Amino acid sequence: MIPPDHPRYRSLVTREILAKSVKKGIVSPEGLIAHGRGEAFDYFIGERTTKSALLAGRTAAALLLSARHPVISVNGNTAALAAGEIAALQKACGARVEVNLFHRTEERVNLIEDLLRGAGAEVFSGPAERLLPLSHDRAWCRREGIYAADVILVPLEDGDRCEALVGMGKAVIAVDLNPLSRTSRRATLTIVDELTRALPNIAFACRTLTGAEQKELLATLDNNYLLSEAIREMTGRLAHALD
Amino acid sequence: MIPPDHPRYRSLVTREILAKSVKKGIVSPEGLIAHGRGEAFDYFIGERTTKSALLAGRTAAALLLSARHPVISVNGNTAALAAGEIAALQKACGARVEVNLFHRTEERVNLIEDLLRGAGAEVFSGPAERLLPLSHDRAWCRREGIYAADVILVPLEDGDRCEALVGMGKAVIAVDLNPLSRTSRRATLTIVDELTRALPNIAFACRTLTGAEQKELLATLDNNYLLSEAIREMTGRLAHALD
Repeated sequence: MIPPDHPRYRSLVTREILAKSVKKGIVSPEGLIAHGRGEAFDYFIGERTTKSALLAGRTAAALLLSARHPVISVNGNTAALAAGEIAALQKACGARVEVNLFHRTEERVNLIEDLLRGAGAEVFSGPAERLLPLSHDRAWCRREGIYAADVILVPLEDGDRCEALVGMGKAVIAVDLNPLSRTSRRATLTIVDELTRALPNIAFACRTLTGAEQKELLATLDNNYLLSEAIREMTGRLAHALD
Repeated sequence: MIPPDHPRYRSLVTREILAKSVKKGIVSPEGLIAHGRGEAFDYFIGERTTKSALLAGRTAAALLLSARHPVISVNGNTAALAAGEIAALQKACGARVEVNLFHRTEERVNLIEDLLRGAGAEVFSGPAERLLPLSHDRAWCRREGIYAADVILVPLEDGDRCEALVGMGKAVIAVDLNPLSRTSRRATLTIVDELTRALPNIAFACRTLTGAEQKELLATLDNNYLLSEAIREMTGRLAHALD
């Protein structure tokens, strides 16, 4: 048992959830390593939503609301950490929720779909096809799901797949704590924030943005600016440690 | 199979080794998360040994060579990633090698001891006692091993234990990629470098340092300077990404 007054309580509980999720088969061992990388970057932005990340979240909401066919792509880490937040965001923006895995087995897909349904999400399921221009298992998706999406939210995505989705002409929204990653740089829009902070911010914006605000956010979308702000935040915090 | 010409080949192979080591019971799931954090920090120092890390490694050698009773404390990640490097360092400095685990079971201790022996290390084993002033399983160690050490090398250590060892009057050498961590700040000497780069550097210095060089390194040991240099390196690389 982790004592609730431990200074790293939240972080330790999250690690415990993920470690248990590996035992259940929901999270892959590689997913744990990816989470660790995220922890380090989160530390550098102060483990809070920065001003630019909030702007990115509001812009994500504008993109999702303006979409003809929005899809949220969910992997093991996302489901383990934020199934409830995914369900709430789906309600707020009306997107299809589809499971897509790097380390794909039918069993893992089913486990993750069940987890999402248990948290209140409607999961777009059914037979998958090899539809994305990728060599590995992430090529698998549904024709009326990710394949047909015009706007796709990909929390915790890998670089190859992000690139392939952008190459197919989709607007890709990434949630990635590393502002230097290939995913961050290739995505249409990158939210440099921790997932369970970012998703409720997007959902809140979906419920509250006016039409005029949406238009303004879409007209001023500048991913390079958002990434530069995140890097500036990290540099500033590191430099501060030298004082 | 990971193609050897992949730009992230080494990093991907390391992840695969660690993922397999979890299945074998050598690495804990939490160990994978810790590795991911290290990956992020390593990225910030350019995935190479910096000048200050090389100086820290040479100073570590001077400490080990001057010790009356040097000990290398090995955990699951260290054994999985660097059993051969530990064995080579032991030959170069004559330290006792003892297994000490945060997530301790007799079975894990035995697995890790076997792995180290297979790589050529002489492992200091036998019955452990609760000898360190700590509440968790890391309190367990051997009376003639870690408990009696005057200089102890703790690769990939946690903050509590580092603090306890320093509190017992030992010179503690940490290998930690996060220059802001509690371990890094509390250790007598911190090498901010990746383990499989750091250990051979220490071993090389153990074989080649002159007596005069050893004295000079010990007289000028300044951990704050070493940590500041590591932070400067990271800040510089981040700022460069803004250009």
